[in-house]
Amino acid sequence: MNIPLAGSRSVLVELGHRSYHIDIQFRGLDRSAEIFSHWTGLVAAPKDLAKQRFLIIADAALQVTHAARVFGSLRLAGADVQMAVIPSGETSKSWEQTQRLYDALVNMAADRKTVVVAIGGGVTGDLAGFVAATYARGLRFIQVPTTLLSMVDSSVGGKTGINHPRGKNLIGAFHQPVGVLIDQETLESLPDREYRSGLAEVVKYGVILDAAFFEFLEQNIAGLNDRDPAVLSHVIARSCELKAEVVKQDEFETTGLRAILNYGHTFGHAFEALAGYGELLHGEAVSIGMVCASRLAEKLGRITAVETQRQIDLLSALHLPVAVPENLRTRGEDILKCMMLDKKTESGELRFVLPSRLGHVETVRGISADLALSCLG
Amino acid sequence: MNIPLAGSRSVLVELGHRSYHIDIQFRGLDRSAEIFSHWTGLVAAPKDLAKQRFLIIADAALQVTHAARVFGSLRLAGADVQMAVIPSGETSKSWEQTQRLYDALVNMAADRKTVVVAIGGGVTGDLAGFVAATYARGLRFIQVPTTLLSMVDSSVGGKTGINHPRGKNLIGAFHQPVGVLIDQETLESLPDREYRSGLAEVVKYGVILDAAFFEFLEQNIAGLNDRDPAVLSHVIARSCELKAEVVKQDEFETTGLRAILNYGHTFGHAFEALAGYGELLHGEAVSIGMVCASRLAEKLGRITAVETQRQIDLLSALHLPVAVPENLRTRGEDILKCMMLDKKTESGELRFVLPSRLGHVETVRGISADLALSCLG
Repeated sequence: MNIPLAGSRSVLVELGHRSYHIDIQFRGLDRSAEIFSHWTGLVAAPKDLAKQRFLIIADAALQVTHAARVFGSLRLAGADVQMAVIPSGETSKSWEQTQRLYDALVNMAADRKTVVVAIGGGVTGDLAGFVAATYARGLRFIQVPTTLLSMVDSSVGGKTGINHPRGKNLIGAFHQPVGVLIDQETLESLPDREYRSGLAEVVKYGVILDAAFFEFLEQNIAGLNDRDPAVLSHVIARSCELKAEVVKQDEFETTGLRAILNYGHTFGHAFEALAGYGELLHGEAVSIGMVCASRLAEKLGRITAVETQRQIDLLSALHLPVAVPENLRTRGEDILKCMMLDKKTESGELRFVLPSRLGHVETVRGISADLALSCLG
Repeated sequence: MNIPLAGSRSVLVELGHRSYHIDIQFRGLDRSAEIFSHWTGLVAAPKDLAKQRFLIIADAALQVTHAARVFGSLRLAGADVQMAVIPSGETSKSWEQTQRLYDALVNMAADRKTVVVAIGGGVTGDLAGFVAATYARGLRFIQVPTTLLSMVDSSVGGKTGINHPRGKNLIGAFHQPVGVLIDQETLESLPDREYRSGLAEVVKYGVILDAAFFEFLEQNIAGLNDRDPAVLSHVIARSCELKAEVVKQDEFETTGLRAILNYGHTFGHAFEALAGYGELLHGEAVSIGMVCASRLAEKLGRITAVETQRQIDLLSALHLPVAVPENLRTRGEDILKCMMLDKKTESGELRFVLPSRLGHVETVRGISADLALSCLG
């Protein structure tokens, strides 16, 4: 496969009258106003954005960098822009931050024509999206993801939410954005572990939906490790296309199809929860989880050892962990308990998304606890 | 027009895959399980409701009456039912009550298949609907309105929400129910003022959309005042049909059509807010507001004095107030300020929904403050 050139790309998320574009543009932040003004979801606004009101909700770490660039572009175009920042980290997905942002909207006299712009990673997008979903019964919303993980995963598909003391993302709503702006340049300053964590979800798309894409990743390991813009441009666009196709077919997670996106996540969530704060990033836990799930598929005779090995080799080459950490291997009972509590179980039955070949997965029910635990390696 | 017999009626709210039925059944509460089991929105549940999980959210005043009947019917059918009660009154549309209800759902280990049932008036429906809209990104939701106002207005159309200290219904979402069960019998115990408050919205439907329905009301004043079940059966069904038609054409309040439902409400909201707590019920304020709006339409030459008089006569015959209270007449500035803050104004311009004949209204912009105030009577 030829590597396409880096440059402007656009992926359409087809959802009827809620359709929107994901625009992937190198140094797009400085042209935010121009890019936003082409989105049909913003058609109610004047094309030149003059006087259109925006609330930018940004990760505090990005206030004077990425967020300032979007802010400047919109201001230059004559828009009426305010900015609210939220502390970095998962704890911002709280009711307290939600209220702060409602207050920010009240203070700027936001009405139904006001647009909310999220600038940051998954936490920012989830929180800002929830605020947009629930203020005045729904404000228009723009995602500007600045981490690889949020570019290829959380910014596509309309899931928004905050955490409840007793459950992650327990409070939330489906609320599609009117557009997503991805500026690859923001990846250049992303810390190494965060970047690689995003790559784990990229590998996942190959395994669950697209063997050719998996091969492309195998053939471009150096480019991926070097954050080559041309390679990343294709990787981001193809990941978004694949996720968009799944979301199109199961927008509200009702048909079961969307569940395939959880490949590696049943094991992964358990590892992430039990490893201790900061020990495993989401993508790192998913990387190990995919290896465990693939082993489970092997034991069930669904695939051969070759398919598992190719995943291990690719993930390892991308410097992602592939083995269950020593301190978790002995905690089978806890891992099991976590997996049973996972929303992907139903009436106490263990369910897993398992490959039947590279590029295709199925949901498999009724896996015994012993069999699942035998895959920890 | 012949008065149809009281009895089971069904109004379809056509919203694509979010379509649902409003079933109007005398003594329907005792057959809740049977009625619910016919709703296609509950198709994921076994038809006999056995083991289907429900959280009933009920107005505290109805806990041992209406809510107990629904609870009993569902339990008898083998469903797994819990009940949470909320204090009567507008102050329950708060974040505190929302959190209590999230906790109730967490405590019963609610999952995406759990169904929320609201039993009460508009406050209960708005709050329970918001909880259903935002728990686990959306639970299925059933409305069982027990006041005339909520039967003909708030339970149809999918608006849910709670109050922010700085704005009524500021936090909310569109979330259509999977079905609405209206048991007219609950109207028999409704306090007189509350009942008449609902009639004001009924009269509104005649003015804005259906002259024949307006005539039906004129011809059935005795039946309306006596709460005659046959008359009410038609009145409720027709009101729901009319509202459903508007909602169908403007589900998310984007085309402007849904705004016609605000006839009488621009003046009305101001009167309600300024009259002092409990002085004017919502429907009473709307009744006076419609008279003022009709006068405004007269002054603009849109209708004749006859159309205003017919509204005054009908509302008066239903024992609804038609004159602005003495203590409000001198508060023109405050009334104006309230009307300018109303969400129906836009960029500081006064907008009103005004009749051009009985059965037809239009949105009229650019009304001067003096002209508006000259309609207070």
